[in-house]
Amino acid sequence: MSAPLKVAVVGATGYTGEELIRILAAHPKVRLTYVSSKDDRKQTIQEIYPYLRGSLDLVCHPFKPEDAAAECDLIFLSLPHTVSMKTAPFFLSRGKKVIDISADYRLKEPAQYLEFYGTAHEDAGNLKQAVYGLPELNREAIPGAKLIANPGCYPTGAALGLLPLVKNGIEWTGTCVIDAKSGVTGAGRKASVNLIFSEVNENFKAYKVLTHQHQPEISQSLKSGKLKNTAFAFVPHLLPIDRGILSTIYVPLAQKKDGKKLHELYSDFYGREPFVQVLPAGRFPELKMVHKTNQCHIGLTYRDDLGTAVIVTAIDNLGKGAAGQAVQNMNILSGFSEKEGLV
Amino acid sequence: MSAPLKVAVVGATGYTGEELIRILAAHPKVRLTYVSSKDDRKQTIQEIYPYLRGSLDLVCHPFKPEDAAAECDLIFLSLPHTVSMKTAPFFLSRGKKVIDISADYRLKEPAQYLEFYGTAHEDAGNLKQAVYGLPELNREAIPGAKLIANPGCYPTGAALGLLPLVKNGIEWTGTCVIDAKSGVTGAGRKASVNLIFSEVNENFKAYKVLTHQHQPEISQSLKSGKLKNTAFAFVPHLLPIDRGILSTIYVPLAQKKDGKKLHELYSDFYGREPFVQVLPAGRFPELKMVHKTNQCHIGLTYRDDLGTAVIVTAIDNLGKGAAGQAVQNMNILSGFSEKEGLV
Amino acid sequence: MSAPLKVAVVGATGYTGEELIRILAAHPKVRLTYVSSKDDRKQTIQEIYPYLRGSLDLVCHPFKPEDAAAECDLIFLSLPHTVSMKTAPFFLSRGKKVIDISADYRLKEPAQYLEFYGTAHEDAGNLKQAVYGLPELNREAIPGAKLIANPGCYPTGAALGLLPLVKNGIEWTGTCVIDAKSGVTGAGRKASVNLIFSEVNENFKAYKVLTHQHQPEISQSLKSGKLKNTAFAFVPHLLPIDRGILSTIYVPLAQKKDGKKLHELYSDFYGREPFVQVLPAGRFPELKMVHKTNQCHIGLTYRDDLGTAVIVTAIDNLGKGAAGQAVQNMNILSGFSEKEGLV
Amino acid sequence: MSAPLKVAVVGATGYTGEELIRILAAHPKVRLTYVSSKDDRKQTIQEIYPYLRGSLDLVCHPFKPEDAAAECDLIFLSLPHTVSMKTAPFFLSRGKKVIDISADYRLKEPAQYLEFYGTAHEDAGNLKQAVYGLPELNREAIPGAKLIANPGCYPTGAALGLLPLVKNGIEWTGTCVIDAKSGVTGAGRKASVNLIFSEVNENFKAYKVLTHQHQPEISQSLKSGKLKNTAFAFVPHLLPIDRGILSTIYVPLAQKKDGKKLHELYSDFYGREPFVQVLPAGRFPELKMVHKTNQCHIGLTYRDDLGTAVIVTAIDNLGKGAAGQAVQNMNILSGFSEKEGLV
Repeated sequence: MSAPLKVAVVGATGYTGEELIRILAAHPKVRLTYVSSKDDRKQTIQEIYPYLRGSLDLVCHPFKPEDAAAECDLIFLSLPHTVSMKTAPFFLSRGKKVIDISADYRLKEPAQYLEFYGTAHEDAGNLKQAVYGLPELNREAIPGAKLIANPGCYPTGAALGLLPLVKNGIEWTGTCVIDAKSGVTGAGRKASVNLIFSEVNENFKAYKVLTHQHQPEISQSLKSGKLKNTAFAFVPHLLPIDRGILSTIYVPLAQKKDGKKLHELYSDFYGREPFVQVLPAGRFPELKMVHKTNQCHIGLTYRDDLGTAVIVTAIDNLGKGAAGQAVQNMNILSGFSEKEGLV
Repeated sequence: MSAPLKVAVVGATGYTGEELIRILAAHPKVRLTYVSSKDDRKQTIQEIYPYLRGSLDLVCHPFKPEDAAAECDLIFLSLPHTVSMKTAPFFLSRGKKVIDISADYRLKEPAQYLEFYGTAHEDAGNLKQAVYGLPELNREAIPGAKLIANPGCYPTGAALGLLPLVKNGIEWTGTCVIDAKSGVTGAGRKASVNLIFSEVNENFKAYKVLTHQHQPEISQSLKSGKLKNTAFAFVPHLLPIDRGILSTIYVPLAQKKDGKKLHELYSDFYGREPFVQVLPAGRFPELKMVHKTNQCHIGLTYRDDLGTAVIVTAIDNLGKGAAGQAVQNMNILSGFSEKEGLV
Repeated sequence: MSAPLKVAVVGATGYTGEELIRILAAHPKVRLTYVSSKDDRKQTIQEIYPYLRGSLDLVCHPFKPEDAAAECDLIFLSLPHTVSMKTAPFFLSRGKKVIDISADYRLKEPAQYLEFYGTAHEDAGNLKQAVYGLPELNREAIPGAKLIANPGCYPTGAALGLLPLVKNGIEWTGTCVIDAKSGVTGAGRKASVNLIFSEVNENFKAYKVLTHQHQPEISQSLKSGKLKNTAFAFVPHLLPIDRGILSTIYVPLAQKKDGKKLHELYSDFYGREPFVQVLPAGRFPELKMVHKTNQCHIGLTYRDDLGTAVIVTAIDNLGKGAAGQAVQNMNILSGFSEKEGLV
Repeated sequence: MSAPLKVAVVGATGYTGEELIRILAAHPKVRLTYVSSKDDRKQTIQEIYPYLRGSLDLVCHPFKPEDAAAECDLIFLSLPHTVSMKTAPFFLSRGKKVIDISADYRLKEPAQYLEFYGTAHEDAGNLKQAVYGLPELNREAIPGAKLIANPGCYPTGAALGLLPLVKNGIEWTGTCVIDAKSGVTGAGRKASVNLIFSEVNENFKAYKVLTHQHQPEISQSLKSGKLKNTAFAFVPHLLPIDRGILSTIYVPLAQKKDGKKLHELYSDFYGREPFVQVLPAGRFPELKMVHKTNQCHIGLTYRDDLGTAVIVTAIDNLGKGAAGQAVQNMNILSGFSEKEGLV
């Protein structure tokens, strides 16, 4: 039995950081050696998350890059965008593997980053070599990567719903619709009046209608195939639940299809994927069934008179949409079984 | 000051029945004289709904049509579909006004009723004279009606979002998308494992994907204009909240529009409506703002490169989607101020 | 018909301020003439709360005392504690009636204020003349008041549960237990990580165990009778709901009682109260039944072998626990029917 | 490495059955060989719970005792009370170990069973040899047991809060108060109007006030020590969350204590327990921190002037309150590490 991989987590008190630590603390192949947060206090991880007593004995420090680098082989950056691109270069220069969970290394076009995140990209060199860590799209590129850009939560749910069309050259006409609904942890653990309980509870709304910053990331994945048209309208909504993204996708197919064959095409496409499951025809996913997992469940139907396919995908935004997928990437990168430590 | 209108409510222990009683108990122009439920016990309304103490002193009986007819001028039927069409004729034959909240008198084509509700329609005569009670579509027909078919909750949210296009002849191409999300009271107060708390809470799912029985009702409203194409894909979802329907509607316009003019067109269309409010450009509705009201809030945007308009409507499914609208219909029918007793 | 009372609300964007405005906008005897908030922007009330369109046409300003005083006869101060006592004197000096919803004028002992709120009281003069506005305790004193200290939410639920014992000299031994559970709006609309949705949702906890600042206020009410002992242990908890406080009170009675007589004593005590309702024996209140009302529902039982009475009270913390009670106080103060504008 | 223990679960479609299967599917020392439910359909476990795809390949059958016995060494009965005592004897007679999660074998006095469950006990012989499976109370008796009565959810939370006093002979006077609040899964997955979403959501209430059937089970645990008085008042409440029980316990101590020493006494009592954690002084537990775990978190304080200790315990009602504890019992019974397969 080989020595465990030593891993660090930066951003331990965010929701994604917490989920990462929860998964990694039970992962048989790794040892968590360093965790840090923006909080100034030194606290044991058990003081912050009492449920970890007995499974992890670590102190959470204010972030010191030198200390982190000294302790780890691989580091997860669970930081706000714009902060990651100032942080990753240091670890890369020390030969550490980096899995970045922010948006900083996802968009191959720096101009798009500027447009949607409002800041010029500052690390074009590493951006070029970064691998977009959606295994179902990009599995072969991951093992050799030094820097992995872990996909966004909405883009994961959207891409997994459309890749079977994209990769099989099934065209649509006009605009495909991606109507997505996310739990509140997607917005992070931050003090904001808009996020307090009684603003969100018993409420529901659309936000950033047709203007959300995840659009170019979705677009980039859709362009990975040979489709002539990849136009889509994307509207995210805020669900009064903790975790989960359900994406309802409407595709006006360019050519009529047989519904049963379309279902088979999806089943075949994902047949060997460990974390993507196409439900039997007639069934649609629900968020409860992916809660605290790294799974994506997909249901689909097609109505001939409308020429429209409806594909519904469900993920846990902290699981397959963030921390779970980050660990999946680590597993692939490190030569572990892809399912190791994941549900 | 004239004598109050005497009204009866059948179905007092359902969610819609409860909301009707709550509104009517405080309505200045009516006197609730009879309430009944399927429950066998005789109970005072105060025993069932303690918050009504002091505002309503009535006993809730098992339903006896003769008794109800003896006590009222107008009756609200808050009954399951197929039961209403067996009940309404009796009251109509006695000269009572009937506001039916079930689906039984909404679809003008009996064949559609058979297809979507699984039973042949049994009261074709009254069906013909029934007025579809969506005031924003049909206000002129309501005052003379004997029987009002109160619209369904989803069809109200969908129609109010699309009527400005329908009535102004603004065409779309292909399929418009109506992605609707409803609170749980829309399913009624009934014992069903699918509806128990821990099946719905922290969960979200689509259901009856492209097959929901409200489709022909939506279609009927969309066909009230002169559009050549009214095709739409309708997918309802179940929100873990008590009340409210948010409908996100995507319209691939046949001709490019100026976004500002489109917003003006909506604002003008609803400018004099007491219960429909088009929000300022850039704002979108949220369910909390229509909770326990009879209002519909609408936000919209248009993206030129996509040629797609996104219209979002919010209603309370028990308010404008059921009981509130039923009282609005009663107000119009009875010559009261349309806003009387409503928020 | 006399001219409406002109009223102002300071603190319009808090939860209590919003509820006050919602109630006052529909109140037949008053005209809201001035509203202000800490927000710097000038916004119409309809922009802030779209559901008020048509019922209130006012602009919300940053607070300017001179402007407020020029516009009103009576002012509601919905401000943080310590701010109210700096604000009320100005309005009192101009002859305006003041209903203060903060804690500033509730505790008759300035030393207690210092101990529990951490600041010396700065307005001892007005504190002396302030009337504690719990009508069920103090109704006679309210009509002549210039300054009303509107009770706290927990103290209202606790006092209403114990006043029948207190006022009938029914003693307990040792420590009575007040175990209270409150919805989240009780904490105000403020940016705090502890209050964001995913910290509260699917969660439940006790807080400020035996140390909550409402203890002296409860104590003050319990001492309004002739009991020899009024000791109690008070523990508040945070419920993952918007509104409502349920208080479960355990009283170890000094002398055995007949359970039926105890229930009668409660029923008699509150028999003429417009907003307090003792439920039939065997029934206990639930928060849903007081939602958006000014009511308090009470259930109680007694087990002879334990010698313990259990009394459960339910209020809406924004209704009888804040804004509703403030309007009830205004009604009494102004000679209106006590129920005017309230449910 | 020895052969895995073969285990069966009866009652697979209840909430406790589901949680058992979730835990057992990932347990390194067991193989799930048989699952059954009351549902007539044969379904794969993956069809019922799609998230189990890949970790469990079993068909769920209607319950046939012979088949179950043929497949297993140990069986979990997750059945309604009164059904278990008709089912367990068959398996015991075949030499199978039985862990019963119903109430049937918990109360040592058949008369109490009759009083609180309304039926005479039908299996007095096995009742005598049944071991009450609360490891913190009874760990030594478990390894030799043939039949384990898995504790109730409320009794687990209550007993863990009071055992340090009970076992150290710390007396209270009069009545101790156990105010408990439970998530909705505690009521089971059954069609009941009282449990549907909109009856529970945004609501809170006490139920079975001083009459709940878990009282004698709590009493039995409290009598395991040498206390002269073990009187308590128990009131359960229904929380609008899925999982968790928080119990707030008020103990009027017979003799004044030093608060710090009391905290130490609790810390010492549970110092070596793998699943019970006494939080640092000043901290109190919250349900989120025990979600989907087998842990119990405890916080406590003491106020000298009141002579009252307040102890707060938090468990997951499906974890330490049901399925988790059942697996803990299996681990002890089978000589596995007590923490195997549990979080």
